[in-house]
Amino acid sequence: MSSKIKIGLLGCGTVGSGLVKILNNHKQVEIAKIFVRNEKRAKQIAKDLALDLAIFTWNIDDVLTDSSISIVVELMGGVDQTKKHLIKALENGKDIVTANKDLLALEGDDLFAAAEKYKRTIMYEAAVAGGIPIITTLKQSLAANKIICLQGILNGTTNYILDVMKKEGKPFAEVLMAAQELGFAEADPTNDIDGHDAAYKVAILASIISGKRVDVNKVYREGISKITKMDINSAQKRGYEIKLLGMIFNNEDKLDARVHPVFVPLDNPLASVGMENNAILVKGDASDTITLIGKGAGSLPTASSVAGDIMILISKESSEPNPLQISNFTEAAELKNIDEVENSFYIRISMHDKLGVLRDLGEALFRHNANVKFIDQYDVHGSEAHADFIIDPIQEKELRAIVKDLEAMDSIKAVESVIRVL
Amino acid sequence: MSSKIKIGLLGCGTVGSGLVKILNNHKQVEIAKIFVRNEKRAKQIAKDLALDLAIFTWNIDDVLTDSSISIVVELMGGVDQTKKHLIKALENGKDIVTANKDLLALEGDDLFAAAEKYKRTIMYEAAVAGGIPIITTLKQSLAANKIICLQGILNGTTNYILDVMKKEGKPFAEVLMAAQELGFAEADPTNDIDGHDAAYKVAILASIISGKRVDVNKVYREGISKITKMDINSAQKRGYEIKLLGMIFNNEDKLDARVHPVFVPLDNPLASVGMENNAILVKGDASDTITLIGKGAGSLPTASSVAGDIMILISKESSEPNPLQISNFTEAAELKNIDEVENSFYIRISMHDKLGVLRDLGEALFRHNANVKFIDQYDVHGSEAHADFIIDPIQEKELRAIVKDLEAMDSIKAVESVIRVL
Repeated sequence: MSSKIKIGLLGCGTVGSGLVKILNNHKQVEIAKIFVRNEKRAKQIAKDLALDLAIFTWNIDDVLTDSSISIVVELMGGVDQTKKHLIKALENGKDIVTANKDLLALEGDDLFAAAEKYKRTIMYEAAVAGGIPIITTLKQSLAANKIICLQGILNGTTNYILDVMKKEGKPFAEVLMAAQELGFAEADPTNDIDGHDAAYKVAILASIISGKRVDVNKVYREGISKITKMDINSAQKRGYEIKLLGMIFNNEDKLDARVHPVFVPLDNPLASVGMENNAILVKGDASDTITLIGKGAGSLPTASSVAGDIMILISKESSEPNPLQISNFTEAAELKNIDEVENSFYIRISMHDKLGVLRDLGEALFRHNANVKFIDQYDVHGSEAHADFIIDPIQEKELRAIVKDLEAMDSIKAVESVIRVL
Repeated sequence: MSSKIKIGLLGCGTVGSGLVKILNNHKQVEIAKIFVRNEKRAKQIAKDLALDLAIFTWNIDDVLTDSSISIVVELMGGVDQTKKHLIKALENGKDIVTANKDLLALEGDDLFAAAEKYKRTIMYEAAVAGGIPIITTLKQSLAANKIICLQGILNGTTNYILDVMKKEGKPFAEVLMAAQELGFAEADPTNDIDGHDAAYKVAILASIISGKRVDVNKVYREGISKITKMDINSAQKRGYEIKLLGMIFNNEDKLDARVHPVFVPLDNPLASVGMENNAILVKGDASDTITLIGKGAGSLPTASSVAGDIMILISKESSEPNPLQISNFTEAAELKNIDEVENSFYIRISMHDKLGVLRDLGEALFRHNANVKFIDQYDVHGSEAHADFIIDPIQEKELRAIVKDLEAMDSIKAVESVIRVL
């Protein structure tokens, strides 16, 4: 396969720009055409991303009907009009990669039916939880499982607000305003705050889990605007964190799919996922519980998922074994010898309780340029004293020289422990 | 595709039995032949798993050369002899799924070269971290990323021992012995305790990450037998947990791959992964940090990964769009109405500070069969008192009736907060 697979891009905002960067100089794929809304915007983006203006178009049909393009990547948003465009792309034999959760949750039926009709594939890893590979995990790795339940922090804005409310003890409205100023919440935050965004994602995940169409309007939904400081304090007192979760329980005849704030016990891995991060806990009948944590948004993390979908699509084109599965690496890796590795170290010594020990220790460390982060000296059994300290990263061979020096010192009885620090 | 894809199974111990259960009555695949070491064992397993004795064989060539079998699943362990068998299977046109990390780390070169020669695929999700889909994540979802680093709790036994040492304040030797009695550590625990098992997994992961062959003997390795209670106490005092991690840093010319105990800061998601669980944190240049947590061993979780590999392999056989990617669900899911959902609830009320309030509250909850888990009454501003409590799961419509009753009570000023509890 010498010629590159050609990709058409619809929209080139935050995620599109990320994708351009990731696929820059890629061996197998090439962004052949980019649709943006007008010439002015095309010129701006071409300049910003150092791209040839000639690959831009402001006529969407130039992408949808270009027979050299095999994959259309939709990153422009919108629902009704966008659906029409994507069905036209499918008609024209193109596979689709999209990050458009609203489109999939609202108009997925028509889109997926069109894909089946034209024997094409629609990939949408980036539509749920940005850079976290939940769709691939559900559709491939857990394909032989019945999924019993899924719980997810699917909206970064609300997780950020709840986390800051907890950490800073401030009320919802104040934290929301600060989040808007920092760009963590939109000017009109309704979509996030009231759980609409999370509900779209729940609808998409619930479809995969149940193998049935799920109407997003039937997903129960409650936002976080009524959560108070007092609620958060009470939760903490009882050993819980308040999180806005999307939840799907698949253990009965009827599917139970909903989005609402919930007290999450601290031993649930979702409880400790802070700031704008996303996370999904999924329990299969065979796999047991798997938790995935990562970035739910952002230019590069989301584009990483889009690019992963593209790689999965093109691996299917090959008549050879799946190129993504090949592990026949011919070149030998050169491994760093442990002597050359730099690490921070925790060191504990036992000392004779006499004058000048600390001075001797300090001098030894100084001789080896080892910078001490903190040191603690304490008695254990009367005449024996201990000290422990952490030193900044140094090469392992230097560390061994330090240990040798310390062990040779009269005032030091033993180097009791040396453990690396991450 | 009406006929099932036929699978040959080599070995039928813990993981093999799990796989038989998962694939029982599967629509697309069928375990057609099972190799075990002798007739006696075949009879025992056939009885235990309610299988037809006729599908068992104690002549491995019956599986390796059966032309109706497309996929050989190797779950019997062993290195040199097993390699020969698997190369024979590849020669005979079979794809391979294996959970054998020793084999891949020690003899992967020859195996993968044979797979390439015969245009076959070797899948090995279950060889690293049991039920956690790290191989698929690296090879597919993150395929467009350069992996910057990976840190993993790859051995459940050592993680269990370190966690129990911390929680119970007991020394290494004592905890190891208890773990052996409970079946969490083997009679000869060297392979786990000294980090060999983790090093095999690091070698496999480092190959994928670097795209080069990695010699497991060059992976630096240090076990946990020297870790003391005092080390663990010191770590905790400083805000760290001690974990045995496999680590790969890929940010320079030479690959830095190693296994050793390390102080992990508490804000690293690996720090809170306890007991025998496994977890992997991977940082890509685009994806940023993704953490996967789950079961690193066990019959069904490991078999779940084996079954996922089988699904990925058979999806490649189809000339249609990848069946694992299809999302055209024709049947509509019936969603549970929120009224019928059962939840545990946190409820907070404000009350007039007068006699009998608690009695009235108790009676109202009793009338609705709401079982109170705990209750806390406290004053906030002199004459106003608050109470909050958590009730055991009840239907949402019942909950709303309770809230209505409470709001109607003279002694209660307001129901201030109602939040579901996971």
